[in-house]
Amino acid sequence: MSKVITHMTMSLDGFIADPDDRIDDIFDWYAVGPVEVPSANEGVSLLVDEASAEMLRDLTDGTGALVSGRRLFDITDGWGDSHPVGAPVVVVTHHVPENADRWPRTTFVGDVGEAVARAREIAGDKDVTIASANVAQQALDLGLVDDVCVSLAPVLLGAGIPYFADLGRHLLLEDPEVVQGKRALHLRYRVRR
Amino acid sequence: MSKVITHMTMSLDGFIADPDDRIDDIFDWYAVGPVEVPSANEGVSLLVDEASAEMLRDLTDGTGALVSGRRLFDITDGWGDSHPVGAPVVVVTHHVPENADRWPRTTFVGDVGEAVARAREIAGDKDVTIASANVAQQALDLGLVDDVCVSLAPVLLGAGIPYFADLGRHLLLEDPEVVQGKRALHLRYRVRR
Repeated sequence: MSKVITHMTMSLDGFIADPDDRIDDIFDWYAVGPVEVPSANEGVSLLVDEASAEMLRDLTDGTGALVSGRRLFDITDGWGDSHPVGAPVVVVTHHVPENADRWPRTTFVGDVGEAVARAREIAGDKDVTIASANVAQQALDLGLVDDVCVSLAPVLLGAGIPYFADLGRHLLLEDPEVVQGKRALHLRYRVRR
Repeated sequence: MSKVITHMTMSLDGFIADPDDRIDDIFDWYAVGPVEVPSANEGVSLLVDEASAEMLRDLTDGTGALVSGRRLFDITDGWGDSHPVGAPVVVVTHHVPENADRWPRTTFVGDVGEAVARAREIAGDKDVTIASANVAQQALDLGLVDDVCVSLAPVLLGAGIPYFADLGRHLLLEDPEVVQGKRALHLRYRVRR
């Protein structure tokens, strides 16, 4: 059945970027080779170890739609309307860009609940992947997430932007599936209901 | 060779206790059985899964001295001078308790560097284990830690007391040794020099 999952690369101390928005050390696993993982976006290709490559292929093949925050969309200029994962993107934003027709495969919606619902429709039998920390936090809070995925980088950033934030309660997960990659430990946790 | 290691149980979002100092959910792995792990302290005995039991035995057998913060010492009343790990404890504190002779196996020293040095002497060929987040943070900052150990609980606490804190720089670790326990994923990272 179709699932809603979150996936981020995170430092051991819980950050997806340092206070200066630098992600170089935690994304070392994207460039340690030897397996080239092509993407739907010609400008992006990764060199990862065998185990990470398989994890990435499974994640990519399973994803029928992505949900992103507006900030990530702006930073990447909407991935040129061609997200590396190869799936349509639903962007959570209060203000639809005026030139929205530049991104015909991209959908703009006003809140996280609506975005996940829209992404589910687009994804059909496939999964919805949330790829922004801010959106992931809201979706977790709303109880919309089935699986929490983390690529845990062997790095302490000391400070920065957290993957998770105040939920106002403890959230229990099941024990994870574990894939030992090079420069990233890939963990997939089911959210306990 | 003798090493200095840190070990804490941590939630996936990086906390060793929630804001109310509650640790129940992240320490579920101490009570899921079926293996009873006795301790040097008669009042304390754990029921963990087979893999966790082996990890705990290795950690306990390898530890020749512990370093603790004053707060943990006070909360536990100095473990009745008999820490569950079965090794002497060096407590970092600016004020030696007046009735210090109540804890004849316990050493009180004024700062983290001195405490680690003293613990190394006591430990001899065995390892020094740091079991307080605050002391671990300072020791990491001082470059005194060889291995960072985490028992990663499948729980999001949302907020609380962090295992790690601002180091003022990125700290790179090696890829971890991984032991998949029940209700805890045991990770051991060597600090990259």
